[in-house]
Amino acid sequence: MDESRSGCPINVSVEVLGDRWSLIVLRDIMFTNRRHFRTLLRESEESIASNILANRLRDLLAAGLLTRDDPGRGHRVTYSLTEDAIELVPVMAELAWWGVRHRPTFAPMRAKAILLHDGGPQMWQAFMEELREQHLGIPLPTPRTIRVSEQLDAAGAAVLAAIS
Amino acid sequence: MDESRSGCPINVSVEVLGDRWSLIVLRDIMFTNRRHFRTLLRESEESIASNILANRLRDLLAAGLLTRDDPGRGHRVTYSLTEDAIELVPVMAELAWWGVRHRPTFAPMRAKAILLHDGGPQMWQAFMEELREQHLGIPLPTPRTIRVSEQLDAAGAAVLAAIS
Repeated sequence: MDESRSGCPINVSVEVLGDRWSLIVLRDIMFTNRRHFRTLLRESEESIASNILANRLRDLLAAGLLTRDDPGRGHRVTYSLTEDAIELVPVMAELAWWGVRHRPTFAPMRAKAILLHDGGPQMWQAFMEELREQHLGIPLPTPRTIRVSEQLDAAGAAVLAAIS
Repeated sequence: MDESRSGCPINVSVEVLGDRWSLIVLRDIMFTNRRHFRTLLRESEESIASNILANRLRDLLAAGLLTRDDPGRGHRVTYSLTEDAIELVPVMAELAWWGVRHRPTFAPMRAKAILLHDGGPQMWQAFMEELREQHLGIPLPTPRTIRVSEQLDAAGAAVLAAIS
């Protein structure tokens, strides 16, 4: 707390996440499972620059929101979300819902945001469980027939097909 | 959307709100009803600089998150939240809840964030109604014995008294 501008819970969150790119990098890892530098760079919808991506990955590692494995020479580094980052799902959902209502957005991405909003905290919890399995190796506490990540992808794909 | 980095609902929100100060200025207007430049400057827990405050107020006006009255010579300008800004209450609540759980925070402010989390969407709606009354002149749809803003202030004051 001594290093923060203040001990306000909103402020401490903004200090970690309040820049133009950190949440975008976390979003890509969280919702599209991009785990490697090159994939995050090449598939970026916002065309993130490589130096900015490198800086943000470094900052997110330092802030305890990401970890990276050490695969040895010739192998690609894989980034994983930490529990701290996984618990940003409700923040992402509310930010997306605000964007849907108050700014122009792209229909397929809007469909995913609306689904995530309509699913509410129950869907957010289920999605966090999936992320814990994927990123932290924690088995799903309850079996499921269809994953939230699959539902989100399907919602986006259906709208994309309809407008293509 | 053409001017955005992408049409992703999270991205468009981050483009408006993703800097180190915009959410902090909105937080002060929203939760402590500071409506004038001088009050926002002098009472800032994060010691915002006057040039940064002026810039952020200008940007938030341009983005449609604030309006300002035109009181004429010698009178103080009053800033008001727009409906767009008022609907950031759930984002503020989730950001604060993340901060409470994952970063050191100051106990009185933490108490307010915990109350806002525990109150959930029902409390957030009630708080938004109060903000609409205060900032937009829209009468409260339902009468209430105690306001959410009063509950939050009381929660913070009780903890402050206990540790002082």
